[in-house]
Amino acid sequence: LLVPRAEIPSRLERLREALRAAGVALAWIDHLTDRLYFSGSMQDAVLLVPAEAPPAYFVRKSADRAAVESPLEVREWPGRRGLLDELRRRLPPGGRLGLAFDVSSAATYRSLAEIAAPLDVTGTIRTIRAVKSGWEIEQIRGAARQVGLLYAEIAQQVRLGMTELELTGIVEGRLRALGHGGPIRVRRRASDVVMAVVVCGPSALYPTAFDGCVGGEGAAPGMPAGGGFRRLSRGESLMLDIVTSHNGYLADTTRSYFLGGRVPDAVRRAHDACRAVLAQVERLVRPGVRCCDVWRDAWRFIADLGEPEGFMGAGGNRVRFLGHGVGLELDELPVIADKLEQVLAPGMVLAVEPKAFLDPVGPVGVENTYVVTERGCENLCTFPDDLHPLDV
Amino acid sequence: LLVPRAEIPSRLERLREALRAAGVALAWIDHLTDRLYFSGSMQDAVLLVPAEAPPAYFVRKSADRAAVESPLEVREWPGRRGLLDELRRRLPPGGRLGLAFDVSSAATYRSLAEIAAPLDVTGTIRTIRAVKSGWEIEQIRGAARQVGLLYAEIAQQVRLGMTELELTGIVEGRLRALGHGGPIRVRRRASDVVMAVVVCGPSALYPTAFDGCVGGEGAAPGMPAGGGFRRLSRGESLMLDIVTSHNGYLADTTRSYFLGGRVPDAVRRAHDACRAVLAQVERLVRPGVRCCDVWRDAWRFIADLGEPEGFMGAGGNRVRFLGHGVGLELDELPVIADKLEQVLAPGMVLAVEPKAFLDPVGPVGVENTYVVTERGCENLCTFPDDLHPLDV
Repeated sequence: LLVPRAEIPSRLERLREALRAAGVALAWIDHLTDRLYFSGSMQDAVLLVPAEAPPAYFVRKSADRAAVESPLEVREWPGRRGLLDELRRRLPPGGRLGLAFDVSSAATYRSLAEIAAPLDVTGTIRTIRAVKSGWEIEQIRGAARQVGLLYAEIAQQVRLGMTELELTGIVEGRLRALGHGGPIRVRRRASDVVMAVVVCGPSALYPTAFDGCVGGEGAAPGMPAGGGFRRLSRGESLMLDIVTSHNGYLADTTRSYFLGGRVPDAVRRAHDACRAVLAQVERLVRPGVRCCDVWRDAWRFIADLGEPEGFMGAGGNRVRFLGHGVGLELDELPVIADKLEQVLAPGMVLAVEPKAFLDPVGPVGVENTYVVTERGCENLCTFPDDLHPLDV
Repeated sequence: LLVPRAEIPSRLERLREALRAAGVALAWIDHLTDRLYFSGSMQDAVLLVPAEAPPAYFVRKSADRAAVESPLEVREWPGRRGLLDELRRRLPPGGRLGLAFDVSSAATYRSLAEIAAPLDVTGTIRTIRAVKSGWEIEQIRGAARQVGLLYAEIAQQVRLGMTELELTGIVEGRLRALGHGGPIRVRRRASDVVMAVVVCGPSALYPTAFDGCVGGEGAAPGMPAGGGFRRLSRGESLMLDIVTSHNGYLADTTRSYFLGGRVPDAVRRAHDACRAVLAQVERLVRPGVRCCDVWRDAWRFIADLGEPEGFMGAGGNRVRFLGHGVGLELDELPVIADKLEQVLAPGMVLAVEPKAFLDPVGPVGVENTYVVTERGCENLCTFPDDLHPLDV
C-alpha cells in the first residue's frame, strides 16, 4: 500500500510550478495530509520545498518509518531552532516563504515571519490536490468498493429499538476491520467528523456545527456529531452516510431506508426527487464546466420538479452546495456551490449528495462519489439507491 | 449531559484572572475543546473574553444549539470582517490580544495582528484546564467506569487468527454504542489518534509518529495509527490501550494479555515490573510534588528493580515520560516527565502508563487514570491488572 515512488516527483513538480507562478521561493509543508501527499509518508515531519531546488524532508518521528514509506531522502530532525536555520539556508535572498495559513499554526507563522514575510499557499495546495492521479483514483475506488457489501450487511442488522449509536458501532466496527484508519480528516476543523453518520427520524434534523445538511444529536454537547441515543422507530426513515477509506483515501456515500413495510407516497416522492437531481448532476458534470453552473442548473432542475421539504438541510442545517471534493480529506475542492467558479477537470473527485429532511419522518436522499473523466463523470458507487423499506 | 451552568462563570473567572496577570486585555478563543470548556458548547464559534468585561459569544453554526447548551448569551455571527470589528470595539486602547498560538491558525494570527500585537495564551489555557472541577472529575469517572466491563467483554471475544483491526472494530464498535463520540481529541495534532490501540507481538514495537511508547503498523502509510492487519498468534502478548469517553471527557487505560495457556516467566516479570512502577507512582503522586521529581523517583525505582527490555518504548518509540494529563484532550497537563517542573495539585487528572516491549513476544504493562486528591491520588480504574493468559 506504499505510495508509488513515481507519484511524489510529479506532485512536487506541480507544487514547484505553482510556487514559481505565485512568486514563492520556498514552501513550508507541515499539515498532516499535505505531508502525506507530498512525501508519501504521514510521519511527524516538516517538508521544505524550494521552487528552484530539491525538497528537504526533516522527520521528527519516526525517521525509520518515513524512510520506508517515502522516496525522499529523510534528514535528521534538527530541532525547532535548527529547522529554522535550515530554512534560512535554503531561502534565496529576498525570497518569499509559502505557508498554508488555513492549517498551519499561529506559532509557526510567527517563527517564519521572523525570517521572511510568509505568503498564503492554501489555495495553491488545495488546487493541486483537487486533481487526482490514476493511482489516487484507484485508492478512492478501493474505498468505494467496500460500500456495496457494507450496506447489504448493515441492512440485515438493523433492528427497531436499537439506538443510532448502537448501529453506528456496528457500521464503524466493520469499517475498522476492513482497514479504516478511524479519524476522518478534514482541512477545516470546526467540528468533529465521524466515520458513519447514522440518524433516524427527527434526529437527522437536529442542528449541528458541521457544514453539511445532515443533522444529528451526537452523544452529548461534548460529542455533538453523528447519531445519538435515539432509538430506531417504525414509520421513520433512516440515513446511513458512510465515509469509507482505503489507504487514507475516502469515498463518501449515503443510502436511506424506511423502517416499515410500506413507504408512504410523500416520502418516496421526496427520495425520488433527490435521485432525479443526482441523475441530473451526473449529466451536468464534465470537464470545462464551472462548479457554479452545475449548481445553478441542478437547482433550477429541482425547482421545476418541485423542491422537497427540507431539501439540502432542515432549518439552520440548510447548505448552499450539492457536492464536495473528496480525497485524503472530506472537504477538498471542487465544491458544487452557487459561488464557486472553479472549472471541473478530469481527475477531480467529488461526492454529490442531494438529500431531504422531512419532519417528523426523517431523512431521505442519496450520495455517490464520482470521478470526472475526459467526457463526463463515472460513479464509483454503483449499487441500488432506491428507498429500501426495512420491515424489521 | 449539559455542562452545568455554574461551571462556566468560574472557568471564565479563572481565565480573566490569568489574563490580567499576563497583561492581556482580551482573549480570542476558537479551538474546539477550548470553546467547549469556556462556553459549555462545541458549536462552531468564537468566544471573546475581555479581562475586565463580560465575554461575547459569537456562533456561526448552530446558534440554536449553542443557545441550548451554553449559559452564555449567544450573539449572531457577524461574518469574519464583522467579528474583527466586534473585537476592535471591545479591545481597550493599547491592550494586548491573547491567542493560543499552538492551535489557532496562521490566518487568524494575521487577522488579529492587524488590530493589536497578539500574545500567546497557550500555557495559560492549558494550566487552567489542567485542574478539573468536581463535575469534570465525575465525567472522567464515568468514562473510567466503562472500562472494566469492556475489558471483561472483549477478553471473551479474542480469537487466534483474527487481525488486530478486527479486534479493534469490536472494541470501538462497543465504545460507540456506549456513547463515545469517535475522534480522540489532542491539542498537538502531529498524528492521528484512535479510540483503541490493539496491538500484538512485534506490531507493538513498530515505529509511529505518535508521541507515545506504544507502536503499531496501522492499516497503511496513509492510516498509520493503532493496529493493522497482523493476525493474533499463540505465544505473543496483546495490548489493549483504550480511550473511553463520557460527555467528551476521556479516561485512558491499558491492560495486557498473553495469548497462550502459560505466561513465560520473563514476560510475567516484565509485566510485574511495570505494575510495581505503577504502584510506586501511586505512592509518589500527591499535591505539592513536582512532575520531574515523580519521574526521577520512579525511574530510580525501576533502575533498582531492573529495567525491563523495551521499557517505555522499543527503539525510536522510547519516550521520556511516564504519564500525561487527561481531560477533554489526551495530551493535557500535567506530564510526568524528566524536565517538567509543574507542581501537582488537587483536581489534576493523569494517566500513568508503565509499559515494556519485548522482542518478539510483544507488549506488556498497564495504564490507569488517576485524580490527584488532597492527600495523594485516587485510581479511577480499579479492575485487575495482572497479565491475563487467554488460552484461546
